[in-house]
Amino acid sequence: MGPWHHTATQILENIRSGNFTVEKYASSLLERIKERDDDVRAWAYLDPKAVLEQARKLDQTPKDQRGPLHGLPVGIKDIILTKGQHPKAFFRNDHPVIDAGSVMILRQAGCLIFGKTTTTEFAASFTGPATRNAHSTAHTPGGSSAGSAAAVADFQIPVALGSQTVGSIVRPAAFNGIYGFKPTWGAITREGQKFCAPTVDTIGFFSRSISDFEILSDVFALHDDEKSTFEDIKGSKFAVCRTSKWDLAGEGTIAAMDKAVELLKAHGAEVEELDLGTDFGQVIDWHLTLVRLEGATSLWPEYYQDKDKLDPVLAKGVQEKHKISRKTQLDAYDGLAALRPRFDELADKYAAVLVPSVFDEAPEGLGNTGSPVFAATWTALHTPVVNIPGFRGKSNLPVGISLVSARLRDRHLLKVSEAVGKIFAAEGGWKK
Amino acid sequence: MGPWHHTATQILENIRSGNFTVEKYASSLLERIKERDDDVRAWAYLDPKAVLEQARKLDQTPKDQRGPLHGLPVGIKDIILTKGQHPKAFFRNDHPVIDAGSVMILRQAGCLIFGKTTTTEFAASFTGPATRNAHSTAHTPGGSSAGSAAAVADFQIPVALGSQTVGSIVRPAAFNGIYGFKPTWGAITREGQKFCAPTVDTIGFFSRSISDFEILSDVFALHDDEKSTFEDIKGSKFAVCRTSKWDLAGEGTIAAMDKAVELLKAHGAEVEELDLGTDFGQVIDWHLTLVRLEGATSLWPEYYQDKDKLDPVLAKGVQEKHKISRKTQLDAYDGLAALRPRFDELADKYAAVLVPSVFDEAPEGLGNTGSPVFAATWTALHTPVVNIPGFRGKSNLPVGISLVSARLRDRHLLKVSEAVGKIFAAEGGWKK
Repeated sequence: MGPWHHTATQILENIRSGNFTVEKYASSLLERIKERDDDVRAWAYLDPKAVLEQARKLDQTPKDQRGPLHGLPVGIKDIILTKGQHPKAFFRNDHPVIDAGSVMILRQAGCLIFGKTTTTEFAASFTGPATRNAHSTAHTPGGSSAGSAAAVADFQIPVALGSQTVGSIVRPAAFNGIYGFKPTWGAITREGQKFCAPTVDTIGFFSRSISDFEILSDVFALHDDEKSTFEDIKGSKFAVCRTSKWDLAGEGTIAAMDKAVELLKAHGAEVEELDLGTDFGQVIDWHLTLVRLEGATSLWPEYYQDKDKLDPVLAKGVQEKHKISRKTQLDAYDGLAALRPRFDELADKYAAVLVPSVFDEAPEGLGNTGSPVFAATWTALHTPVVNIPGFRGKSNLPVGISLVSARLRDRHLLKVSEAVGKIFAAEGGWKK
Repeated sequence: MGPWHHTATQILENIRSGNFTVEKYASSLLERIKERDDDVRAWAYLDPKAVLEQARKLDQTPKDQRGPLHGLPVGIKDIILTKGQHPKAFFRNDHPVIDAGSVMILRQAGCLIFGKTTTTEFAASFTGPATRNAHSTAHTPGGSSAGSAAAVADFQIPVALGSQTVGSIVRPAAFNGIYGFKPTWGAITREGQKFCAPTVDTIGFFSRSISDFEILSDVFALHDDEKSTFEDIKGSKFAVCRTSKWDLAGEGTIAAMDKAVELLKAHGAEVEELDLGTDFGQVIDWHLTLVRLEGATSLWPEYYQDKDKLDPVLAKGVQEKHKISRKTQLDAYDGLAALRPRFDELADKYAAVLVPSVFDEAPEGLGNTGSPVFAATWTALHTPVVNIPGFRGKSNLPVGISLVSARLRDRHLLKVSEAVGKIFAAEGGWKK
């Protein structure tokens, strides 16, 4: 096995200690991609020559001028602008000379900005790109952060940026058997990326290890004001919340949730059922209203410029914006805002809340990226979420389960997720 | 007088009827700018040759391919990306090849994207650019949309784009004696502009006539779901709301508010005092918390890249982000969100709510752009606001008054503002 199988944390250690050069890592990843790209097709833009040039430049950087993520290769979801890398998800025509705010931070930290990963049109459509699930060419990788998740799961890149408006981080992470982290809404600047629904759009990450999220959270200055008191699963209290849409869960997810609860209990945790009750019954509808409304505003420039170039489903969304009444719009904004502190209060009683990530393992075919419904509630409530791999469906494809905490407890949630992730990986029943 | 003195509506009529070419308008504005730029200094980027090229190209566009704003020159606040026009408000180094969403719409509608107007650093600092008030070289034009307001007031451009996070449209409009319109939050896509505080950042416009806002609102698809019932000032009910900060009002604003109430009554309106009471007492503090918090997140890329290049006040804001406790952050988000529907309910009883725009006429000197405090409440509550000129302070400089309505009543508010604006302009006591 080449060094391509290392996690971000391992790569940084190896580069810091001089075991490997950045160029060696970059070359190894490029070889892995070459070998696997026909099957996975995760990249929207990749210029191997430019990658190696960047790598050599990083190797020449004097040690005292190196950033904390020096040499770390990162994949960037195609809707996020990256200097000199042509986005396919936009129809902005030109070669950007601008890094999005998130990419500026990564570049400054010393990352190797590897290339752009595939996504659905404007990260808003459900019609998949050509990308396949990392574990089956016949199955969708999920969307919209399809390429980011598939590339990380397939060891083509250690970490990648994604974004979530409904379930675009959680779903592909769950389908590809990796970790996905959507921080608290607003924690990371979204400047320089295509908007979908700004009230809920959130930047996040994919990795194969929670410690990789920790090092990324450091450079993005994610900070919990209140220190986590979590120490160990043993003696901690978890909630399990199956949400009002639980009747949509397939056998893979039902089994995974049962197994997850069983594992937590076996490791000494207390697990309570959390029923959000009828007050939260409209969350998913309200969230859908916001996404339709704000999505139409975000796509108005493209629609107005050339509506025939847009996916017909997206064009219809723009056309029908005016059918959403004022009352429906304001009820959605104000209803969700009123529930956010109420969920925080509920969640704060637990180490974390266990929730389903997806209906089941990835559906067959590439035409549709699957349903994001199980992830919608937490996106709408602005909470941090981590998808944790470790379970499997009937075709032996991965099924993830999510952990959720109250807003602004991102670092706490990572700490809990690390402990839970170890157990799920070791005893959950799915491994690459 | 050259054609430079025309409003947008007049320009469009003249171009449509063939009275004037786009080139003739562009040349006239360029002459006006040449004559006045030493005094006003409103432009951060202006390339007269490129402007005339664009104008000639527009003149050559066949009539059946012309957009609804064909030939209309527009100034763009420098934090909003514009193809080929180098922004000074960013330190993004490069010549952008990308239009912000708002600029895409204007360009598609046929506008002549004239140039970039000055702003304070990242539209976040209160240290003014070199721009002067259109009516006095010794006075600030206000900020942060300094150049947009000064250029429109000085007849250098008929309309301009601005943005408001606290009072960056209302304040410079009030100080320069023109109309300023901040729509409902989220009504116009903010993609492709520098972020300050995304929860409140709003794109809006400057003009010398309300009908210019109507034609801009059409292309930006601003749409009231509920039709306005406003017909005439006579018989309408207005509220006057002096807010909890009224003791900060100077004599210019006190006199303007009194005069405004008197004029509305003289024209047959009923005017009631609206006291928001103690429940709204924290709005301004909560808004400030959001701006500090989100401003620090938005500037983290620039700070992390090179903090010494940042205005020290902004750098301090980034450094001190972590001093804002979790409780303070969530109280601000949830407290403001809970008040938004409550204000809507109050405002919906009136044709509009009359509120102060600024403490007084523009303060002397260019070092500081003045206080945005009177505008903060309505930005925080996400309502549409229109600054209406027509009053004056003791140095005979303009003082504006704002009209506010409930969220998503933008077109209604424009209708009311047109009627009110006519009276204030004719009888308020200030004219260019």
